[in-house]
Amino acid sequence: MSKMSMKRLSLLLLLQLTCYFSSGSCGKVLVWPVEFSHWLNIKTILEELVTRGHEVTVLISSASTIPNSSKPSTMKFETFPVSLTKTDYENFIERLLEEWTYVSKDSFWSYLSTVRSLFWEFFDTTLSICKDAVSNKKLMTKLQESRFDILIADAVGPCGELLAELLKIPFVYSHYTSPGHIIEKNSGRLPLPPSYVPVMLSELSDRMTFMERIKNMFYTLYFELFFPTYKEKKWNQFYSEVLGRPTTLSETMGKADVWLIRSYWDLSFPRPQLPNVEFVGGLHCKPAKPLPKEMEEFVQSSGENGIVVFSLGSMVSNMSEDRAKVIASAFAQIPQKEMEEFVQSSGENGIVVFSLGSMVSNVSEDRAKVIASAFAQIPQKVLWRYDGKKPDTLGPNTRLYKWLPQNDLLGHPKTKAFITHGGSNGVYEAIYHGIPMVGTPLFADQADNIARMKSKGTAVRLDLETMSTRDLLNALKEVINNPSYKENVMRLSAIQHDQPMKPLDRAVFWIEFVMRHKGAKHLRPAIHDLTWFQYHSLDVIGFLLACVATAIFVITKCCLFCCLKFAKLGKKRKRD
Amino acid sequence: MSKMSMKRLSLLLLLQLTCYFSSGSCGKVLVWPVEFSHWLNIKTILEELVTRGHEVTVLISSASTIPNSSKPSTMKFETFPVSLTKTDYENFIERLLEEWTYVSKDSFWSYLSTVRSLFWEFFDTTLSICKDAVSNKKLMTKLQESRFDILIADAVGPCGELLAELLKIPFVYSHYTSPGHIIEKNSGRLPLPPSYVPVMLSELSDRMTFMERIKNMFYTLYFELFFPTYKEKKWNQFYSEVLGRPTTLSETMGKADVWLIRSYWDLSFPRPQLPNVEFVGGLHCKPAKPLPKEMEEFVQSSGENGIVVFSLGSMVSNMSEDRAKVIASAFAQIPQKEMEEFVQSSGENGIVVFSLGSMVSNVSEDRAKVIASAFAQIPQKVLWRYDGKKPDTLGPNTRLYKWLPQNDLLGHPKTKAFITHGGSNGVYEAIYHGIPMVGTPLFADQADNIARMKSKGTAVRLDLETMSTRDLLNALKEVINNPSYKENVMRLSAIQHDQPMKPLDRAVFWIEFVMRHKGAKHLRPAIHDLTWFQYHSLDVIGFLLACVATAIFVITKCCLFCCLKFAKLGKKRKRD
Repeated sequence: MSKMSMKRLSLLLLLQLTCYFSSGSCGKVLVWPVEFSHWLNIKTILEELVTRGHEVTVLISSASTIPNSSKPSTMKFETFPVSLTKTDYENFIERLLEEWTYVSKDSFWSYLSTVRSLFWEFFDTTLSICKDAVSNKKLMTKLQESRFDILIADAVGPCGELLAELLKIPFVYSHYTSPGHIIEKNSGRLPLPPSYVPVMLSELSDRMTFMERIKNMFYTLYFELFFPTYKEKKWNQFYSEVLGRPTTLSETMGKADVWLIRSYWDLSFPRPQLPNVEFVGGLHCKPAKPLPKEMEEFVQSSGENGIVVFSLGSMVSNMSEDRAKVIASAFAQIPQKEMEEFVQSSGENGIVVFSLGSMVSNVSEDRAKVIASAFAQIPQKVLWRYDGKKPDTLGPNTRLYKWLPQNDLLGHPKTKAFITHGGSNGVYEAIYHGIPMVGTPLFADQADNIARMKSKGTAVRLDLETMSTRDLLNALKEVINNPSYKENVMRLSAIQHDQPMKPLDRAVFWIEFVMRHKGAKHLRPAIHDLTWFQYHSLDVIGFLLACVATAIFVITKCCLFCCLKFAKLGKKRKRD
Repeated sequence: MSKMSMKRLSLLLLLQLTCYFSSGSCGKVLVWPVEFSHWLNIKTILEELVTRGHEVTVLISSASTIPNSSKPSTMKFETFPVSLTKTDYENFIERLLEEWTYVSKDSFWSYLSTVRSLFWEFFDTTLSICKDAVSNKKLMTKLQESRFDILIADAVGPCGELLAELLKIPFVYSHYTSPGHIIEKNSGRLPLPPSYVPVMLSELSDRMTFMERIKNMFYTLYFELFFPTYKEKKWNQFYSEVLGRPTTLSETMGKADVWLIRSYWDLSFPRPQLPNVEFVGGLHCKPAKPLPKEMEEFVQSSGENGIVVFSLGSMVSNMSEDRAKVIASAFAQIPQKEMEEFVQSSGENGIVVFSLGSMVSNVSEDRAKVIASAFAQIPQKVLWRYDGKKPDTLGPNTRLYKWLPQNDLLGHPKTKAFITHGGSNGVYEAIYHGIPMVGTPLFADQADNIARMKSKGTAVRLDLETMSTRDLLNALKEVINNPSYKENVMRLSAIQHDQPMKPLDRAVFWIEFVMRHKGAKHLRPAIHDLTWFQYHSLDVIGFLLACVATAIFVITKCCLFCCLKFAKLGKKRKRD
């Protein structure tokens, strides 16, 4: 046995012992993750579970892009073979996201149709992976024999709920949102009145004008009528076959004991919730660690002006092991001395951090020039996550990095602004540390996240593809110099920090609760046992209306009959 | 200065110092309480606030029935004069509750009409007290000058919200429920779909048959159409006059920052909630203290059979100072030795506690006989809260007490059953300690509480007025000998104990949060800014239907026009 695995084994053994001798509530956790930023978030929960002595096994396909470098050695990874290769899967996801980024939002119908077809493609691939897992007898026997206590799944990548049903164990979802809230609405049965709950992808706020409420109603109707069937037929058929009884994907997903929603009332607008839904947004946020020496000195050199962080998300670090290695080595090569002097040189001005993450490779040379010349005109130092060709217009106050320690930079006292693509993880880090944002959303929920931040007065929104140097300059000046942005984001930061219990602790509490009690049935609303027309009381209303109609009919008939009788009587008397 | 007040002053000073030197978040709290069991519950919160160093001032009228003995000396009580006398108020409330107890529930319409008129009377009296407070210039100046940070009010006794508006301070409600949920629905704007949320007073569960859903719809319609106007006109007029702008009671109540609902998902059925609503049911429950020696020995004497507790609520101890004194002295006179021997004599059988609280005086001699002879036939010892004439049929296993330490008895390992009127405080104590119940509801929400407990398999329900000795005997045997009752109530007890944070701590957290942040606007849903037809999107639906109708009209007209044109053309051609 290697030194590494010996070390790992003894650590695991120690944690297990700690668990059994203290809380006595240790369990075996099976995880069905979704990749990319979803994995980054769920990993925080899993690491905490391991720290508390639970045994965590993550089930991944052989095509999984979760890089080895981000796999904590304290967890087990159970890999099952799939027909897809890692490169195929990576290219497939990259294509989907690129299509989503560049689809025009000008036409409501074509935009949503594109999003729908992208989702269908993603769900088709997920279904094929799911089939590979469930039909793998060796894997299923191993899982059965492992006697897990709970399964943790991500609601946007189905299959976890099927495995939980097959293994007869309770399950908990980690979930942020879905287009039009279809998942949380159809499976979680969350009430989302369109009058004050903006539909995901509509980019609206909770305080809507009449015209905005009409727009929100259109989105609601679209998702109600055209989206929910996202290849559900295939799924329903597969789930029914495997479980040996007629069922649906929605119904199976609705069996989740607890939904851990990666949002809170600082990022989200207040809306109705259900007892089995816990809002644990920002659970991955933590205080900043000291920056690498070179970077810290660059940051310090900014003086009073502070820094700006520019990042388009961390997806690249999840994209593949190779990419992660490239980035890690890129960061290791940061010339410590040079950066140190650069940061120190900013004096009183402070720094700016700019990162568009993995999607930066989508920024054309022309865009990079526009961005660089805006940066050159601000007194702050700028840290820009970028691995393209160095733009000619790059000012001496701007440094390019292939990787940025985003959370640590955002938590740095010198940081004045964060230019971000609006991924929920990054936005939460900015909220946590109280940093105003310039948002340049690319795809998925990013535009909605930035719309929320804009409506809460903590961000300015720009379009990365069409913005001019002046636009970016004005946006940066606005969020840095107009004190209202800092005040508003500090207010959100206070809300995020001032909770009865930390979101990570709440998430872990409910996972442990479900293990302790083999579910959380007391939190499950009876709505799950109702059909949609029963839920809306349509059968009751119909019955009552039918009663009223019958009563009116009978009364009218009686009246008519009496009138007729009297008329006849009158005639008869007249004749007599 | 007396020794007592010196002691009180130094205690207060110590607490204030503790506060300023530790958390730094001390505040001045004004309280507008509702009397009786409501006071008992809110007192727990206030005592905790005092312990944490906050300065608590309770505003009560000169007619208040809150007895001095239940007023903690660490709080200030600010009394203002009202035209009503204490005896008038006491008699008034006693009459209302008696009417409610004895009204027949056989006719839906007459039962709810009686409840409505009782509420109207209660609201009228509350309005007159409110007017006396607000028009008292000296009092209002004193309150203004005191610069309170928060007001805590009880939602069923309005006026607190008006005071908070006048003093320009945020406010938090403590609330359990209201007939038909009208308060939480109209002012709190909680969504309560009639398909799975049983309306308060309907005594239904969350899993309803078709006919039960029709019944629930009738209750919903009744409260929607006939109840909400409960003298609101008078209130709306008064609030508009005082605040100098057109407003309503509902609107002013809707400004509450946080609603602390005295319920949780063990007593309540899971239903939609809003972010500014915190379910803190059972916050008053605490581990049992040792019983008085005499009582402990009686209890111990029950052996394996255990005890039964019979109580109809604690209202009597709140009813008036005089009554409280009577009870306290009654308890002091418990013959310690005699009871000790009695309890010990129960041997292996254990004991039963039976208390109908203050309402026991309503049990006729005949009823007492019926009850006593049932008790005489069980092997448990019975502790019965009763201050009427000793029934002839009283067995040697039954002891009568004018007062019972209910929580301590319910927490006693010997206790096998609790016969209760179903007040929410008592039911929560039974849940907390895991004691099966026999419910004999009298008025208000008591029947609904017992219906919930019955549907969760933890209670048998009886009608105090019509039950026979055999009924009571069977009910007691059922809850004591059928293990499912104990199992079910232990499951609820586990739920109550296994929360991320204790309910009292959560309640205090949100009160302190509102003080720290001068409100909790981030939790307030935008629904409060919408009218009812906007909330239900009726304007949007109307507009869209009108658009569709117009389109159909225009298209039809165009078609008709074209047809006509073609027809004319055809005719013309024919003629040509």
